[in-house]
Amino acid sequence: MEKQKVAISIGDLNGIGIQLALENHKKVSQIAEPIYCIDSIMLEQAAEKLNIPVPNHFRTVEEIAPSFEIKPGKVTKESGAYAYASFLKAVQMAKAKKVDAICTLPIHKKAWELAGVHYKGHTDALRDFFKCDAIMMLGCPKMYVALYTEHIPLKEVAGSIDEEKLTQFLIDFYHTAKPATSVAVLGLNPHAGDDGVLGDEEKMITQAINNANQFLSTQCSALNAPFEGPMVPDVAFTPNTRKYYTHYIAMYHDQGLAPLKALYFDEGINISLNLPILRTSVDHGTAFDIAYKRAKLNHLSYFNAIQYIVGV
Amino acid sequence: MEKQKVAISIGDLNGIGIQLALENHKKVSQIAEPIYCIDSIMLEQAAEKLNIPVPNHFRTVEEIAPSFEIKPGKVTKESGAYAYASFLKAVQMAKAKKVDAICTLPIHKKAWELAGVHYKGHTDALRDFFKCDAIMMLGCPKMYVALYTEHIPLKEVAGSIDEEKLTQFLIDFYHTAKPATSVAVLGLNPHAGDDGVLGDEEKMITQAINNANQFLSTQCSALNAPFEGPMVPDVAFTPNTRKYYTHYIAMYHDQGLAPLKALYFDEGINISLNLPILRTSVDHGTAFDIAYKRAKLNHLSYFNAIQYIVGV
Repeated sequence: MEKQKVAISIGDLNGIGIQLALENHKKVSQIAEPIYCIDSIMLEQAAEKLNIPVPNHFRTVEEIAPSFEIKPGKVTKESGAYAYASFLKAVQMAKAKKVDAICTLPIHKKAWELAGVHYKGHTDALRDFFKCDAIMMLGCPKMYVALYTEHIPLKEVAGSIDEEKLTQFLIDFYHTAKPATSVAVLGLNPHAGDDGVLGDEEKMITQAINNANQFLSTQCSALNAPFEGPMVPDVAFTPNTRKYYTHYIAMYHDQGLAPLKALYFDEGINISLNLPILRTSVDHGTAFDIAYKRAKLNHLSYFNAIQYIVGV
Repeated sequence: MEKQKVAISIGDLNGIGIQLALENHKKVSQIAEPIYCIDSIMLEQAAEKLNIPVPNHFRTVEEIAPSFEIKPGKVTKESGAYAYASFLKAVQMAKAKKVDAICTLPIHKKAWELAGVHYKGHTDALRDFFKCDAIMMLGCPKMYVALYTEHIPLKEVAGSIDEEKLTQFLIDFYHTAKPATSVAVLGLNPHAGDDGVLGDEEKMITQAINNANQFLSTQCSALNAPFEGPMVPDVAFTPNTRKYYTHYIAMYHDQGLAPLKALYFDEGINISLNLPILRTSVDHGTAFDIAYKRAKLNHLSYFNAIQYIVGV
């Protein structure tokens, strides 16, 4: 079987992304065909600064953005502009079906801002490029958490629970995350509302679960109600419950990400689902403090991000 | 040094509490002097049903409530009434300074209800008995989490953040939990508000932290600002951050308890602080499904609850 092609946007070249790419190329090439969105001049400069030889068959892309001097650990306009251009190139390749998916290395939001990029991050940009309700899912093979609401104040969360929207979210999630087992949908309130005593949004969540299960079963009669819940949020992540679920739907950011990161911080990746292209990403930043210092990096997140794409 | 006396309320006798008490008596007696709030007739009945001999020096208390037939795994009025009376006895002994603290074994809320007890649980009852703002803290020696808000709907949480109340909460917490290291106070919003972009309650939290630190430093000049934060909720529980903190203040139930139970479910205990008496409890239920079946129980929570009292 032919290996899947993955465009890798190189992230902020003043950070650790390029070190990850160079150090993992051999291992990554065994499961995928990576195409790095960096040109040969910048690649040579980075490799020299890192004192890491460029691996064989390290396939690059020309004409990304003007060359610039790498300044390890610094927030610069030039590096921000290059990181954004590298990301755009990866997206273009995926849209043109030249690659099967993209994997993004970390960018620095402030550097994007200096370069005049008005997106806060990759997911934000992808939503706008494709005018799609991207679904943000984080995690690792042991546990994935998709967020129904993301970066909104906590006080707005309860009002955002909406039966129709959640139904659509669950159906979209199922089609693009393709979970192999049942999916745990969390309740909103402590004890999942305790039969309405501690909040009643669970009624809507229950209805959305039923709607989605019913809709999916009409599409495929063999499908047996994939969504379960609403589950008690502080019980859902206990070791016993985790035996039964690998995929969780959290109603809000910290409900899902606090337990996920408590358990699997080093392995986590960030996945954009429900878009015309698949995008995965490491779930860490540019780590400017250790960039170009030949620090021993944690490769798990990057490698998991590639693995998710190739479905290993 | 004399061992500390601990009154143990026996919980619902149709559940697993009595098995925990019998099986752990020897070990518990090595660090504390337990006094079990069960009478000799009920003790003999339970021991016989469990086929566990009553250990030596198993000190009981007479005249608790009418005897009744134990019905393993059943919700009964009689068992609810006995559990409540046992709890009252333990509280009386603590009030009368006959014991140093109380440790409660699990009750069944529905059985209390059947017996006409209008409290939802131990903490609720203690708040009313003492007319005090008890602080609920859960956890184990590796991590304790105190809850600023507890059993309220999520939609009411943001509106409950109040500078003055939180300041008092932090001061009360410090005096009764006596944390040995810095305490992590969580923010309310994703990314702790991201400088106000995702909510602004962090301003009040910051102010409350400053108030409490300042107040405590006036009481003890050697004290160096014990409270830190507001911390990013989904970063606060990652392995790296946990190296620096054993005590956390969560703004709401699931923010603290979901990560805590994901990490340390089996070891967790429940502690009522800021009351005239100290009360600890196991953090699990009556486990009616395995009661009187000589199941292999998890003793960690019960033993940790005793250890917290004696400060081992």
